[in-house]
Amino acid sequence: MENFRQFVGFLVAAALLGTLSVVFVLTWVLQWRGGLAWDLGLLEFNWHPVLSTVGFIVINGFGLIVYRLPWTWNFSKPLMKYIHFGFNIVTSVLMVISLVAVFDFHNSKRIPNMYSLHSWIGLAAVIMHALQIIIGVCTFLLTFTPTFIKTFYMSIHVFVGLFIFGMSITAAEMGITEKLIFTLRSGSNMTLPYSQSPPEAILVNTLGVFILLFGGCILWIATRPGWKRPPEHIKENIGSEEGSILNKTNVSTETNMEQVPESAARLKHLNLEDAGQRSTF
Amino acid sequence: MENFRQFVGFLVAAALLGTLSVVFVLTWVLQWRGGLAWDLGLLEFNWHPVLSTVGFIVINGFGLIVYRLPWTWNFSKPLMKYIHFGFNIVTSVLMVISLVAVFDFHNSKRIPNMYSLHSWIGLAAVIMHALQIIIGVCTFLLTFTPTFIKTFYMSIHVFVGLFIFGMSITAAEMGITEKLIFTLRSGSNMTLPYSQSPPEAILVNTLGVFILLFGGCILWIATRPGWKRPPEHIKENIGSEEGSILNKTNVSTETNMEQVPESAARLKHLNLEDAGQRSTF
Repeated sequence: MENFRQFVGFLVAAALLGTLSVVFVLTWVLQWRGGLAWDLGLLEFNWHPVLSTVGFIVINGFGLIVYRLPWTWNFSKPLMKYIHFGFNIVTSVLMVISLVAVFDFHNSKRIPNMYSLHSWIGLAAVIMHALQIIIGVCTFLLTFTPTFIKTFYMSIHVFVGLFIFGMSITAAEMGITEKLIFTLRSGSNMTLPYSQSPPEAILVNTLGVFILLFGGCILWIATRPGWKRPPEHIKENIGSEEGSILNKTNVSTETNMEQVPESAARLKHLNLEDAGQRSTF
Repeated sequence: MENFRQFVGFLVAAALLGTLSVVFVLTWVLQWRGGLAWDLGLLEFNWHPVLSTVGFIVINGFGLIVYRLPWTWNFSKPLMKYIHFGFNIVTSVLMVISLVAVFDFHNSKRIPNMYSLHSWIGLAAVIMHALQIIIGVCTFLLTFTPTFIKTFYMSIHVFVGLFIFGMSITAAEMGITEKLIFTLRSGSNMTLPYSQSPPEAILVNTLGVFILLFGGCILWIATRPGWKRPPEHIKENIGSEEGSILNKTNVSTETNMEQVPESAARLKHLNLEDAGQRSTF
């Protein structure tokens, strides 16, 4: 892997920012919003930011980069597909519970559902994520799907996955904005209003910044050509030396063309499926 | 250019969504929010969403993809750099005016500045955008900057530019959320509250959806390897036939390796600067 230290740096930063995001959202609901319960009231609502941060931001984010971890490059491609699928299924389940919590709360308090831009973009992202799983399974996990379909769909699958992740971050930032305005209104409940920047507002704004920076780290890792998982054929059929050359070549088409001739003959061995599956952005 | 029809389709969609976004934001402030003026009051504030949508979303967005337009591929590289720079300078100037409008309004009404997550992320995006211009000029427009610096910085410049664009979309969606909650509160001013989905809320939520979809089109166009501007040397020194072959080759490293050998010898002519400048994501 090229720039291995830089990769580890971004991965550690992502892990740190993801952990801080979860700690901050838990601190928010446990210290300032009364805690968590399943009571059809405000404590049930509190599951919504917690599960959305854990599921749609952190787990979804790491699910996007599992193929980038060099420690998994000895794993078989099918196993990696199932790991990627697993992250996304967990995300989807957590988001269903997260949505039930907020709909329960709204219905019990007779607050209309789905009126805000946060709800429009957030629900669209959850539905698109579920569709992405279904279409992804049909395309990449069913063995009889023709290779040309896999190749055609791969770049769309990758782009849409990253775009949904961006939507989830946008929805989270809007959700934070909504909740702080609603709860810190006119200094109710013995607190200062949002505009006076009480400690709760600073903490939750900081949570929003952590989520954004976490997104930046994940998107940087996911879109570096030099950090892609090497094609399956290189590992299985050609051997490590040539794999190393091809790996460099794939990077070098972006930065330096001089290494192409020495490995060009070997490139013929690469089949469409592998090539398609390496097409990150 | 590969998939030229698809490219034109996304470009037309972006133009349509960008136009609709501007029409919707103007309709919002002119029909529901009293219009535009420079009066230190609400009418001055109204310049903020208008200028931010026009500048930070639409002009910034098209500035990201000027290198992708095949009709400009006969233009010299320096001219293209100045066009790209021009879009970004216009964006930056509009954003300064947009920020003055909102600070003027806040100060005259004694509303604190910079307390919301919208303001944190929005101002960070504007500052990062200005720094991006300054560093970009020093790196790519100053002729004496060493090539290795240009090559090293290019992938960072591209990623950060797209990330700032994503931040501007996120800030816009948060700004819409804030403004609708503040203005449609408890059915003040003869309107229904936000939660009752009055026509204004539907229009402005729809504006938010258009902005998101516009962002999707721009990011798709900006990140397709096959839609990159061909390297300068291909056009100037080798000729159109080889340029066509190399162009295909650059795409084929993502999708099909079989065409590499036939053009490998010519790839040596490509210098680092061109290669670096083609490294979009």
